Amino acid sequence: MLDILIHNATVVTMEGKGVGIIEDGAVGIKNNKIEVVGLTTEIKKKYSAHQYIDATRKVVMPGLIDAHIHTGISILRGLSQDIGNWMQKGLWPFYKGLTPQESRIGSLVNIIEGVKAGTTTFCDYDHPMGELVKNHVEIGTRARISDMINELPPNMADIAVGDIYPLDSAIGNEKLMENIKLINEWHLKENGRITCLLGPQGPDMVSKELLLEIKYLAEKYDTNIHMHVAQGDREINQMIKRYGKRSIQYLDEIGYLDHRLMAVHLTEATKEETQLLAKRGASMILCSGSIGIIDGMVPPMAEFLEVSSRAALGSDQAPGNNCNNMFNEMKFTAILNKCKAKNPEVFPAWKVLRLATIDGAKAIGLGDEIGSIKEGKKADLIIINFDKPNLSPIILSPIRNIVPNLVYAANGNEVETVIIDGKIIMEEGKLLTVDENKAVLELHKAAERVANRAVEDVKRLEIPLLQMMKEGYL
Amino acid sequence: MLDILIHNATVVTMEGKGVGIIEDGAVGIKNNKIEVVGLTTEIKKKYSAHQYIDATRKVVMPGLIDAHIHTGISILRGLSQDIGNWMQKGLWPFYKGLTPQESRIGSLVNIIEGVKAGTTTFCDYDHPMGELVKNHVEIGTRARISDMINELPPNMADIAVGDIYPLDSAIGNEKLMENIKLINEWHLKENGRITCLLGPQGPDMVSKELLLEIKYLAEKYDTNIHMHVAQGDREINQMIKRYGKRSIQYLDEIGYLDHRLMAVHLTEATKEETQLLAKRGASMILCSGSIGIIDGMVPPMAEFLEVSSRAALGSDQAPGNNCNNMFNEMKFTAILNKCKAKNPEVFPAWKVLRLATIDGAKAIGLGDEIGSIKEGKKADLIIINFDKPNLSPIILSPIRNIVPNLVYAANGNEVETVIIDGKIIMEEGKLLTVDENKAVLELHKAAERVANRAVEDVKRLEIPLLQMMKEGYL
Repeated sequence: MLDILIHNATVVTMEGKGVGIIEDGAVGIKNNKIEVVGLTTEIKKKYSAHQYIDATRKVVMPGLIDAHIHTGISILRGLSQDIGNWMQKGLWPFYKGLTPQESRIGSLVNIIEGVKAGTTTFCDYDHPMGELVKNHVEIGTRARISDMINELPPNMADIAVGDIYPLDSAIGNEKLMENIKLINEWHLKENGRITCLLGPQGPDMVSKELLLEIKYLAEKYDTNIHMHVAQGDREINQMIKRYGKRSIQYLDEIGYLDHRLMAVHLTEATKEETQLLAKRGASMILCSGSIGIIDGMVPPMAEFLEVSSRAALGSDQAPGNNCNNMFNEMKFTAILNKCKAKNPEVFPAWKVLRLATIDGAKAIGLGDEIGSIKEGKKADLIIINFDKPNLSPIILSPIRNIVPNLVYAANGNEVETVIIDGKIIMEEGKLLTVDENKAVLELHKAAERVANRAVEDVKRLEIPLLQMMKEGYL
Repeated sequence: MLDILIHNATVVTMEGKGVGIIEDGAVGIKNNKIEVVGLTTEIKKKYSAHQYIDATRKVVMPGLIDAHIHTGISILRGLSQDIGNWMQKGLWPFYKGLTPQESRIGSLVNIIEGVKAGTTTFCDYDHPMGELVKNHVEIGTRARISDMINELPPNMADIAVGDIYPLDSAIGNEKLMENIKLINEWHLKENGRITCLLGPQGPDMVSKELLLEIKYLAEKYDTNIHMHVAQGDREINQMIKRYGKRSIQYLDEIGYLDHRLMAVHLTEATKEETQLLAKRGASMILCSGSIGIIDGMVPPMAEFLEVSSRAALGSDQAPGNNCNNMFNEMKFTAILNKCKAKNPEVFPAWKVLRLATIDGAKAIGLGDEIGSIKEGKKADLIIINFDKPNLSPIILSPIRNIVPNLVYAANGNEVETVIIDGKIIMEEGKLLTVDENKAVLELHKAAERVANRAVEDVKRLEIPLLQMMKEGYL
């Protein structure tokens, strides 16, 4: 007896080298796993279930993987775009006084946003993760978490752009301890839904000694390292000033480039650096939306994919993306890369769908557990309604339009049902585990407090968006 | 006594040089016009209304303008992307047998898609517009329509790529007559909601004689000419082979570059050509999503805007975009242009919002009627719910995050109410004028017929997507 049987579906399994579609398909769930997948007629002959979900004119596919998100700063959504140096000239005045409670209030709504748009796994990379993880527990999401480790002083907003940052080992040790505490408390908890990574913020923000300690711990706990690498000219400038070399050469020399590394952004990596990282077995996480907005850049994913398929997509951060929606990321990844290559044939729909599912799962070290619909894998599934006007009509032959429309036409709102670890988290677009409206109202209130606190610093630092406010552009 | 009073809103008027926000604002509607706009407290002292709409934590703004859409081919959504030469190698086998009734069925759902995402004005440019216009009448949209005029033979799919097209004046005359008939039947009808333009398909698809006849008629009816210009190397090759010169030089020589011309795409226009067109007073319509997908290109809007603000955005066509959603177009326009310029400061949120509203209205010749919230203008308004997780939190001070989140975080699903010409067309996300579900089901059925009819041609022409189907990528 199955717990749940989804039938009459177009099943996009993501098995095989492409998308592995089964028409008139069914997926059976038992406990937290996929028990069976195949044709509806055959499965219904052999199985019965406690609960049936009719997916006529709907698509069932693996839940999407957001391989890089900072949910703790989403309370600052929409405050740092259309400017240069978004972090120091936009974010810092608002960020510096943020309390753990405020971060958590924002994170809750941010995770809800992701789930509603079909994200089931979040590589949440932020501080204070000991607080934020409670949201993943409450909502029921799969999370691969780390507490962001850096040695930066609290007054970063006051350091002139271009000056070398002071690194403070006391701060670094304290933050490392928080990441270790996170691992001890949460690794493999909640039926395995929560797993922990190490989270150094970037090679420029952590000393060599601390980086090596982190690497030692990743081996000890047999887990991954989630890190920004070659993220913008700011980082490269710091690395050259501090070590006389660029990020990826430095990381190679200290033994960081291997299968444990999930390298995020690579905006400033050359083709050679990117391909060295790929050859060493590290994975690359591409954040098309945020990097497009805050840097006006298209990172070297095309070059990475020439060497390796250990690649994933991430939605990064709400202050400068400004949304955390993997449909948005898939679409931007395809179109930005087509425009970069001046070739509509590159980054086809099936390829970016793989980045957000099966290839992404492998890139974050969960390839055996999630990312495709296969017997024995965890039941992380989404059901998408193709009766929405923007996904109509459905055409199955002689050309099937399902996957192109998933990538180019869907915006995430078509996701109707979300199942994570065998449990229905969302049904008919309504979240079952938390009160969405209450969470949003609480966020509005908390954000007002955060914004009021920043007033003086925003004026003192003359941040560029203040001038735009005065001139009527915001 | 007002008909409708929307109060407690954040009103994004789009008046002035930026976005013209009024906090705690209200908008009063009487008949089909905006009677009053201002502060809620002041307006409620002076006016009462038959119907009140409380817009607490909601944004009221002008309805969006889709300045270039082919609603008649949306039944072919998702059939022509990720390939080169999308039209001949993707679209034609499906397009060639399309009946007027099938076009209309697809168009109905396509317009619904647009309205649900906040589009109130559609420059619908397709054939047979005499059929399609009935959808705009039924749904209640503002439409600026033309019947697409060309002199192309019906067997275009059989002409080798690169061969000069034969132009057939009998076909051209027949299509011109349809456009004239459209004008006679529909121009300024439905309380002025429907207006007609002339619609030559491109300088390469219509002879010089017919182009001049069309220009004469545009003067006679005092209306605009909606035309693809410099759309891809295909057009430029045809122009050079036929006339020995490129499109824009040719159009300048025959007197086409003036305020009546709405020039669409300009993908192949040089900076000099684009700026010549801008200087002559013609407007430019940019279709970021479709051109990104089908051509891998970012058209020269930045260059155009150096000279003129007569610019608008369009969603083009569903077979290769694959959606028709102006929030999608705004976001892509901003990010693609930032990446093209390698500069996050260009194409800020306020600028693209103007392209989709007030600047767009001027570009399509309706600047006095729509595009901003101003007393005396037509009441084409949308109300957007900012309690959606992806638009939360609302921050109003010291930096307002409303406009950046409208452009970068919204996906269109947050539009709750749509008012066109003073009439509520959509309420709480539900369309009031047509049965959405019925329309979608009818579209699925019609599309199956269309697809079945194309099977033999798809095989015969060995279109690239067929190979992708066989290999499991679709």
